[in-house]
Amino acid sequence: MIPAEPLERLPRRLAVARGDEPADLVIRGSHVFSTFTREWLDGDVAIVDGVVAGVGEYEGAELLDATGRYLVPGFVDAHVHLESSKLLVDEFARLVLPLGTTAVVADPHEIANVLGTDGVHWLVDACEQIPLEVFFMASSCVPASEFESPWRELTIGDLEGLLHRRRVLGLAEMMNFPGVISGSPSELAKLALARHVDGHAPGVSGLELNAYAAAGIKSDHEASTIEEGRERLRAGLWLLVREASAARNLEALIPLAREYGPWRMAFCTDDREPEHIADDGHINALVRDAVALGIPPEDALVMGSLSPALYHGLDHLGAIAPGYQADVLVLPDLASFVPDLVLKAGTPVEEIPHVQVPEWVKRTMRLDPVASNDFRVPWKGGSARVIGLIAGEITTASLVDELESEDGYAVADPARDLAKVAVLERHLGTGRIGLGFVRGFGIQQGAFGATLSHDAHNVIVVGVDDGAMALAVERLRALGGGIVVVGDHSVRAELPLPVAGLLSDRPLAEVLEASRAINEATQALGVTFPAPVQMLAFLALSVIPSLKITDRGLVDVDRREVVPLAYDDVLDARHARQPASASAAHA
Amino acid sequence: MIPAEPLERLPRRLAVARGDEPADLVIRGSHVFSTFTREWLDGDVAIVDGVVAGVGEYEGAELLDATGRYLVPGFVDAHVHLESSKLLVDEFARLVLPLGTTAVVADPHEIANVLGTDGVHWLVDACEQIPLEVFFMASSCVPASEFESPWRELTIGDLEGLLHRRRVLGLAEMMNFPGVISGSPSELAKLALARHVDGHAPGVSGLELNAYAAAGIKSDHEASTIEEGRERLRAGLWLLVREASAARNLEALIPLAREYGPWRMAFCTDDREPEHIADDGHINALVRDAVALGIPPEDALVMGSLSPALYHGLDHLGAIAPGYQADVLVLPDLASFVPDLVLKAGTPVEEIPHVQVPEWVKRTMRLDPVASNDFRVPWKGGSARVIGLIAGEITTASLVDELESEDGYAVADPARDLAKVAVLERHLGTGRIGLGFVRGFGIQQGAFGATLSHDAHNVIVVGVDDGAMALAVERLRALGGGIVVVGDHSVRAELPLPVAGLLSDRPLAEVLEASRAINEATQALGVTFPAPVQMLAFLALSVIPSLKITDRGLVDVDRREVVPLAYDDVLDARHARQPASASAAHA
Repeated sequence: MIPAEPLERLPRRLAVARGDEPADLVIRGSHVFSTFTREWLDGDVAIVDGVVAGVGEYEGAELLDATGRYLVPGFVDAHVHLESSKLLVDEFARLVLPLGTTAVVADPHEIANVLGTDGVHWLVDACEQIPLEVFFMASSCVPASEFESPWRELTIGDLEGLLHRRRVLGLAEMMNFPGVISGSPSELAKLALARHVDGHAPGVSGLELNAYAAAGIKSDHEASTIEEGRERLRAGLWLLVREASAARNLEALIPLAREYGPWRMAFCTDDREPEHIADDGHINALVRDAVALGIPPEDALVMGSLSPALYHGLDHLGAIAPGYQADVLVLPDLASFVPDLVLKAGTPVEEIPHVQVPEWVKRTMRLDPVASNDFRVPWKGGSARVIGLIAGEITTASLVDELESEDGYAVADPARDLAKVAVLERHLGTGRIGLGFVRGFGIQQGAFGATLSHDAHNVIVVGVDDGAMALAVERLRALGGGIVVVGDHSVRAELPLPVAGLLSDRPLAEVLEASRAINEATQALGVTFPAPVQMLAFLALSVIPSLKITDRGLVDVDRREVVPLAYDDVLDARHARQPASASAAHA
Repeated sequence: MIPAEPLERLPRRLAVARGDEPADLVIRGSHVFSTFTREWLDGDVAIVDGVVAGVGEYEGAELLDATGRYLVPGFVDAHVHLESSKLLVDEFARLVLPLGTTAVVADPHEIANVLGTDGVHWLVDACEQIPLEVFFMASSCVPASEFESPWRELTIGDLEGLLHRRRVLGLAEMMNFPGVISGSPSELAKLALARHVDGHAPGVSGLELNAYAAAGIKSDHEASTIEEGRERLRAGLWLLVREASAARNLEALIPLAREYGPWRMAFCTDDREPEHIADDGHINALVRDAVALGIPPEDALVMGSLSPALYHGLDHLGAIAPGYQADVLVLPDLASFVPDLVLKAGTPVEEIPHVQVPEWVKRTMRLDPVASNDFRVPWKGGSARVIGLIAGEITTASLVDELESEDGYAVADPARDLAKVAVLERHLGTGRIGLGFVRGFGIQQGAFGATLSHDAHNVIVVGVDDGAMALAVERLRALGGGIVVVGDHSVRAELPLPVAGLLSDRPLAEVLEASRAINEATQALGVTFPAPVQMLAFLALSVIPSLKITDRGLVDVDRREVVPLAYDDVLDARHARQPASASAAHA
């Protein structure tokens, strides 16, 4: 539910709208965008108590001359995981508000995996203190699969409780699309909780897509081809056009806006790294790129403002019109879409208060000390399953290869680009470690690890040297979470992420600097794979094909089972698989 | 709130959608309209448990061959007063369902004036029994003005109670637009009850329209010019395009659909007489006429189905797509828009059960016997206010004229087309009678009267002979309400409307026959004004300029006060008025 209208403010609002009292602020001389008619109107915009009173001839206590500039409603991100920015919400707001994003709809499933509903409630509460308007969807799939080990599972009751919060709009992406389509009772029970349900249906089409939509799912942000996008629109799903750091779908999908208009399409960022937002932008970057790809600016603006607001039922957002919240961007032109000025509820965004982080949110590492022998893999020789990285994808290949062994233990073989990978359960201190091998990073020495590993966010570490792996994990333990690069028996670079092991509590600039240092340090280890830490974080996401690893071991995603490291020609041949699906995107 | 999804039906729906189980019904060979993409898709439509499972290749227990025909979603009337049809809801359903209207959103303010919330609850309950899906808005303005005398006023508490009913979607048209715009506390208190509020703002524009929209009103169905329509769309109001029996706005407004697309415009009928529906059609007539006026059929269909559903938040209606209710019309072509077949929730509409009418709904006339001397108007001579009819309008002129008098009483003067008009309070038996004179009917003898007089629905009677007027009222009393024509001291024609004095309990054919007989009988009295009974019913609506009459006397609508029959040159000159507003339409 969105905030109820405070009755006390109406008399003054109406007096201002009628022209009987001066507005708090009048913006004069601009071209005012009507998202309803896709026109540019000439007129003063009168703002009172944070709300637009009207567009017309008005006087105000304060006057803003915007002659010749363009006034558009603030951008709304239809689907985002705030945690991907690695920033606390106040710092996230400092980053995206100046870019024109004035509201977002967030799925907090990263923090939900680490801290349960308590973590979600904390995040929702923290967002009440900042000028960025953050709405939430209740995370529907914690854990993402039965092979992952979050701190605890979110139950139907947890979701019900979350859904009663004022800023929780519905059920977040139903990632368990096979469960929905097949009519799994646990998934249907979730669907019965809410009428507003986000989808996540990579590669689903035809009758299966019909079943997914018939279950009551209202959107999808996983379409990556124009055919998939078209099929979703026809099936009645809103098409959330995503341009994340890994999965980028704008160019493929945007021709559909030309074909069908912008009314059932909305922009979203899903997962954007902090450097991606800092360098490229946020929703404004999607608007800019859509225009560069030939979409009329008016249609692109609708997809970045009114459409996401309509989709989520946020009827106070998405327009500069009487009664709408005065989230207003002053644009110098219709090409860069970087605002000169951002008004949030009628006020320029200035100081944003610092969110306080309580101790319990920072103490999430429950992991006993580890040593190099914890990473030993007994090995008798023979074929082994190896995770194969694919450039530009978060899907992996399921390879089979021979492993080097020393003294009865399998070891990394940098010459053949074979590194060891481990996932260590870190929420309950069970000591559970999943071990395997991965090809594609190019790592020649040391190790790097992180407490970012979708979606359960256990510790994941890759390396060619058990001692370096142990040192990386020990350092992560000391930091309370983060990203660490170890080479030559010492820590070479690190980004502490003490908040749930997911977020920094430092300013953006420090995060970017540490992030760059980590990239350089991994390159110094010989790593050639682009954005290696981001790739590392997806190796544990056991709902994306083909071979993944969690604290429970290697997961054959297509077969939906934990599989041993050793590959048995005879046994495994029985399970001959289809080629891995081309669709790859994570939430 | 719309009906919640019954969880038990989902597994079978999904099995059918997947193609794993046969559908209940498959419609094959047609062009299937997608309201989302405005395309015609080829494919089978699979229906299970009243819901569309999908469009694709399907098998079903039953097969309907619709080769070459057009499948479109059922029409939704965005705003209607059911009582204008003079039919009980079951008979109304028998009339409009075959025309393709499968859902309506009704404002029950006629019955609310006569029977309070009890009447509304009875109507809502009655609608549960019929296949036509009737949603309601809580009537916000009972009485329509302080000069009208309904049975009782609907309070904030009454509205709150109504708004909690499952089929009540929001607050009905806020007819007291001056009160809303000026910020009247009683009107703002109503607005605080609901987020979904219909508007009614005839002639309102500029800053006043901004104030009306800023108050939280979401639509208007009173725009009658393209400029008014454009202004409403820009202000963020949904434009409900009305084609009623009296007020007809389609031709003026429909070019806006070409200009802006059909996404913020929806069709409604507001007040359609039974003969109008029988002869011309219902929402299908608006679709047909829009197409005849050059609008693409695809856009006209959106305005008749998806748009009204979206506006009212009816997310199970308005599309033939997975999960949507199977309200499906089979059209032979895209010109007449009269369906060959209508499926309501997947089933052809056949027998519609008769709604039972309890005694208390039929006993609403609380009026003591009247005699001719009750209609006497003491008169000393001089100028008098006279209501002047205007052809094609429901506004009236405020005339000043000399009256004939006999023995100290003012009398009708057929030679100068001056008839007497009386409104008799009939809900509480107060004996209150308002008396006045009207010019324009052309009546030369007798009288005609009705218990239809918007919005309080007291008895209204016009005549040239006090005895005939008394006889008409006595007959209405005996009938428990209706329409009566009296000539030469006997009843010449009558239509009993025993249900609240508003509705017949007879079949459409009998209502039409009686209605025709009444028209002929009025002509026999010399009446020349077209649709005289309909005009009569608007003479008491004291929110439409300029001079009206209620049981409290003559009402000067522009001055918002009860005024005496005698016109005093000196006193009245002080109140020199603006010319009567051109906008005329009733709810």
